[in-house]
Amino acid sequence: MTQFQEKTISRKLIFRGCIVELYVDQVQLPNGSYSTREVIKHPGAVAVIAITPENRLVLVRQFRKALEKTILEIPAGKLEQDEKPEACALRELEEETGYRASKLYHLTSFYTSPGFADEFLHIYVAEGLEKGEQQPDVDEFVELVEYDLETCLEQMQLGLICDAKTVAAIYYWQLQRK
Amino acid sequence: MTQFQEKTISRKLIFRGCIVELYVDQVQLPNGSYSTREVIKHPGAVAVIAITPENRLVLVRQFRKALEKTILEIPAGKLEQDEKPEACALRELEEETGYRASKLYHLTSFYTSPGFADEFLHIYVAEGLEKGEQQPDVDEFVELVEYDLETCLEQMQLGLICDAKTVAAIYYWQLQRK
Repeated sequence: MTQFQEKTISRKLIFRGCIVELYVDQVQLPNGSYSTREVIKHPGAVAVIAITPENRLVLVRQFRKALEKTILEIPAGKLEQDEKPEACALRELEEETGYRASKLYHLTSFYTSPGFADEFLHIYVAEGLEKGEQQPDVDEFVELVEYDLETCLEQMQLGLICDAKTVAAIYYWQLQRK
Repeated sequence: MTQFQEKTISRKLIFRGCIVELYVDQVQLPNGSYSTREVIKHPGAVAVIAITPENRLVLVRQFRKALEKTILEIPAGKLEQDEKPEACALRELEEETGYRASKLYHLTSFYTSPGFADEFLHIYVAEGLEKGEQQPDVDEFVELVEYDLETCLEQMQLGLICDAKTVAAIYYWQLQRK
């Protein structure tokens, strides 16, 4: 599908932070004209679908500064440098929820916001859960919550579960239950 | 859940573009210590799940500069200033695919990347599709593709369908079919 490609004429780094980098690209479009693209670079992240033996989805409640509110999400976190997604998934699950998984399998991976960011999120399903202690990062404040499918669907309806990965996870869980 | 709130000490605008704004916030954490948050502001967007009378999902193939590749997604686009999400959904569907919908209902809305961005995506299901002509924006190059559920699942497996909203849409479609 090379006919759609946009040729980079120039790229300017606007900001390099701890999480994101922002670039502004000048591009040549397939019809020869020129345009500008704002591009966010992100290290990538993982998220974990963990169902307890009591058939409840493991969630964390946390404040999200970008939203200025507290929401409910499946456990997730960004990849550290050179970290394998599987290792990151096991680490984030244990840090945020205290759960250790004896088995992990890769469900899918997706870009969260392809219109402006390259964040690539790997979703894993954790099995063989064993409960330990939460060990959140020093600047992370999370509360563990466990909901059955009906409550998850209610919380979605109420807009308290309201992020892409958690909605996808609940649809997936619902599919497994049918 | 006010105990998790992060108090904004200062906010610095780093960049204001056509699509995104980037801020760096100094925050005080619930334990009293300080940290930094990088925040992307985005105007919000819509996406449309449209199933043809032949039971195929309407998709568009387009080049995404942030990813430097061409991917397959459900029709979507960002909200123009003061635009109602419903109007935006009908507009984007018609512009990108040529399809007009006689009925639209709201399925769900979610944040795509709550860790760093406030993009809020409204997902609609379109019904009563009628085919017309594509009218993409001048700087938009999209190809219409229509796939049945099995092909969508294959394309997901192959990583050619690889964005959050389209994966969520396919799970949702699969749920409707069960």
